[in-house]
Amino acid sequence: MMKELEEKIIAEGKVYPGRILKVGAFLNHQLDVDFINRLGKEFYELYKSEKITKILTIEASGIGIACLTAQYFNVPVLFAKKTKSKNLGNDCYICQVHSYTKGTDTDIMIEKQFLSANDRILIIDDFLANGCALDGLTGLCRMAGAEVVGAGIVIEKAFQEGGKRLRDSGLRIESLCRIADMDPENGITFLP
Amino acid sequence: MMKELEEKIIAEGKVYPGRILKVGAFLNHQLDVDFINRLGKEFYELYKSEKITKILTIEASGIGIACLTAQYFNVPVLFAKKTKSKNLGNDCYICQVHSYTKGTDTDIMIEKQFLSANDRILIIDDFLANGCALDGLTGLCRMAGAEVVGAGIVIEKAFQEGGKRLRDSGLRIESLCRIADMDPENGITFLP
Repeated sequence: MMKELEEKIIAEGKVYPGRILKVGAFLNHQLDVDFINRLGKEFYELYKSEKITKILTIEASGIGIACLTAQYFNVPVLFAKKTKSKNLGNDCYICQVHSYTKGTDTDIMIEKQFLSANDRILIIDDFLANGCALDGLTGLCRMAGAEVVGAGIVIEKAFQEGGKRLRDSGLRIESLCRIADMDPENGITFLP
Repeated sequence: MMKELEEKIIAEGKVYPGRILKVGAFLNHQLDVDFINRLGKEFYELYKSEKITKILTIEASGIGIACLTAQYFNVPVLFAKKTKSKNLGNDCYICQVHSYTKGTDTDIMIEKQFLSANDRILIIDDFLANGCALDGLTGLCRMAGAEVVGAGIVIEKAFQEGGKRLRDSGLRIESLCRIADMDPENGITFLP
């Protein structure tokens, strides 16, 4: 599966200057549901013994991957919201997350009633780079007293520091592929 | 299934003044994936003869429902994005959408390469009220020359004008339940 994912990134992804990778053809704008289903099965193989009670992700691009993955675990998905809508209750956990992609700080939030100290959480997301989203999501879990069993990431930009920093802090992170480096001329190289 | 959906809305939904319905317990914050899967199967039964090529939705709350539904049709999902991220190409179709819930106007966009005149589109969303999101999504399809076969909505607020207006315009809309009225004291009444 990891090999198939690397081949798909090379075939359908596009690398731009500044080590930007666009995979909107299959992962986070248009979604190849059959393919993502198989990624979800891979996350299940990695975490099936962990008694996961809920999958946590962040809007928007994590939601599809999380839902397809959750089918294997037979658990609900909870996604952190980025904006305060009128329909969101006041009883929320809130963390601030910096997005290097969008150049903004955003509050992410979940309603308290959906996360508790009884939960064993698997975090799912499409990318791991600086780890800001993971910081925010683990922060929300900490506020609720929920245990983060680990994270399942589709693509890790291993040349950025988030993966190392968070693994050093004790978080289990399983990335289905890890990019060592990339540029528009030489393409993408993966870590073995 | 429609009956089961109505019962779930009554059991797990919360009605607030101003005819606001919160269904974050199972539909658009926390997601009951097994239940939404069955909603997706219902959409498939309604549209299976229509040679759908792609499911279109809008971030964030439509994505999970669209992905689970897409598994039955064996087609990709495309979700319209609400903000212009640096990772989004310039070659986009853009429509403006007003959100009564959030009190804002937002540009929604899709990359042109993912929608074409060969596409037969099923639009999926969680709510239909004023129809602003549907206006935007059908607008994007019109720009691409794609045919909108119809829309699949989980909850229609039938006391607002979107459903009637869009059906009168010729759009096929299948709502899995239709709310006639609601308030915190008397609860929810559904259209038969």
